[in-house]
Amino acid sequence: MEEKNIKLKFGLTIKNYRLLKGISQEKLAEKVGLHRTYISEVERGERNISLVNIQKIAEGLDVAVSDIFLEVEKGSDH
Amino acid sequence: MEEKNIKLKFGLTIKNYRLLKGISQEKLAEKVGLHRTYISEVERGERNISLVNIQKIAEGLDVAVSDIFLEVEKGSDH
Repeated sequence: MEEKNIKLKFGLTIKNYRLLKGISQEKLAEKVGLHRTYISEVERGERNISLVNIQKIAEGLDVAVSDIFLEVEKGSDH
Repeated sequence: MEEKNIKLKFGLTIKNYRLLKGISQEKLAEKVGLHRTYISEVERGERNISLVNIQKIAEGLDVAVSDIFLEVEKGSDH
């Protein structure tokens, strides 16, 4: 998977989980201690997010990191 | 999961997959275009690795990122 592709798919997956939970970017940002702008950029695939922040966001969304990546990998080789 | 903990568990999981595949840090580093020292630091939990490099290493080990995190999450809440 290309660099741009993994960031876009990850961002979209995060956004989908957030919408599913019915919480705003502001709420998620506050919950996990990150800036709303950062969350927005991650969701748009503009950030090469780190392991620690992946974990924080997953916890904020009450979802396992492995579940996020299962979604990311859907429809690709992995 | 704490920051230090996620980095340590991720590193150990990567190392286990690499040993399972029977390849050296040098070989993996070369295959994925990262430095051997960097791979070594990731395996020791000393690096807050980014999404793009997580993906590169997973591809180099021929394993899905979701499978790596399933291992990382074993024995924890997630």
